[in-house]
Amino acid sequence: MLIDRNPLPDGIDERLRRQLSFIAEVDQLKTVLRASPLAAAERRENDAEHSWHLALMVLLLAEYADEPIDVGHTMRLVIVHDLVEIHAGDSPVFDPAAVVGQREREEAAADRLFTLLPDDQATHLRALWDEFEAGATPEARFGKAMDRLEPMLLNWLTGGGTWHMPGATESTVRARESGVVAGSTSLGAATGRLVDEGIRRGWIRPDGPDLEPSSGG
Amino acid sequence: MLIDRNPLPDGIDERLRRQLSFIAEVDQLKTVLRASPLAAAERRENDAEHSWHLALMVLLLAEYADEPIDVGHTMRLVIVHDLVEIHAGDSPVFDPAAVVGQREREEAAADRLFTLLPDDQATHLRALWDEFEAGATPEARFGKAMDRLEPMLLNWLTGGGTWHMPGATESTVRARESGVVAGSTSLGAATGRLVDEGIRRGWIRPDGPDLEPSSGG
Repeated sequence: MLIDRNPLPDGIDERLRRQLSFIAEVDQLKTVLRASPLAAAERRENDAEHSWHLALMVLLLAEYADEPIDVGHTMRLVIVHDLVEIHAGDSPVFDPAAVVGQREREEAAADRLFTLLPDDQATHLRALWDEFEAGATPEARFGKAMDRLEPMLLNWLTGGGTWHMPGATESTVRARESGVVAGSTSLGAATGRLVDEGIRRGWIRPDGPDLEPSSGG
Repeated sequence: MLIDRNPLPDGIDERLRRQLSFIAEVDQLKTVLRASPLAAAERRENDAEHSWHLALMVLLLAEYADEPIDVGHTMRLVIVHDLVEIHAGDSPVFDPAAVVGQREREEAAADRLFTLLPDDQATHLRALWDEFEAGATPEARFGKAMDRLEPMLLNWLTGGGTWHMPGATESTVRARESGVVAGSTSLGAATGRLVDEGIRRGWIRPDGPDLEPSSGG
């Protein structure tokens, strides 16, 4: 653990010691790189930056949720949703190899990471993560919609971004668009406009027999 | 504006267009470097990463607030609190030159940035930013306490961090500690332990006539 580098001094009680050690440990989220490029700089985005951006988007776009959402709760979900990638790594959506075993890796990472916290908070953060992953509440669906929309906006701003990855074609990009639609019909429609225009500009390849991975060898 | 690089396609209404343009513009927060070093990598922290970390700390440490706080509202404050630095830049606390005119620069930046949003949301984000800056509510005081505590923890983890800057001595570091105390007596006490031990290890210089900038020329 990062805290082992300089253990906390005496005079801090055990509960707070565990909380501060966890807060130190998750500094690692700032080093987990995503496939998405930033719009503002020539480098890839990391998970901490991405999580901040989603929280701000929840605050600004909540009015478009198809069902009423608790904004504060949705912000909690997106702040926590990528923590397990500290141990499990990011799994780029357009890379078929990266998503093999992703769920199992992330479950194991959650077991390992959240148990650093006091029991009640370990349970709370695990519940938030499980809720987001299951996507079964309005808040989780809207949080996931932000998680799909943000990289699409970055792709748009950078002339294609991860849409240029080998695994990305119209159908796989449309599958990501459907994740926005699931939380917000109107934001899904706007995302559809980005995808339509991305296809028209050649930033997203059409599907076709000669482009399917199975026929490529 | 960043959105001018690839203006949004037709078929997105004016309100959403302004919101998405703002969300694109604030991608720049990921490029505003703070003085603080990361614990997890050999580089400085940026404002987006810092804001994410504060939001998670609010979620985990709210129990230590001296007065009851609305966690969701406090998370809103910390997600928004550094946005003006996109235009005003970060002002390192231990750099006397950086803080000259800081308030005026940040006010001007707020006027420029938030007005990109639809009027109601411009007013809302400006109110959140003003509330945080004034520190007059329990939520703002606790958010500010996190804003002081997080870099102190990073300094601790990195063997001193910004405590080694020329402007940092015991009294200036203690002034930062008092910002934690203002939101949480118990977290303030824990921060005091980090500072005490930092002084004992020589990571924080004692005050003294021979060390004051005024006597250094």
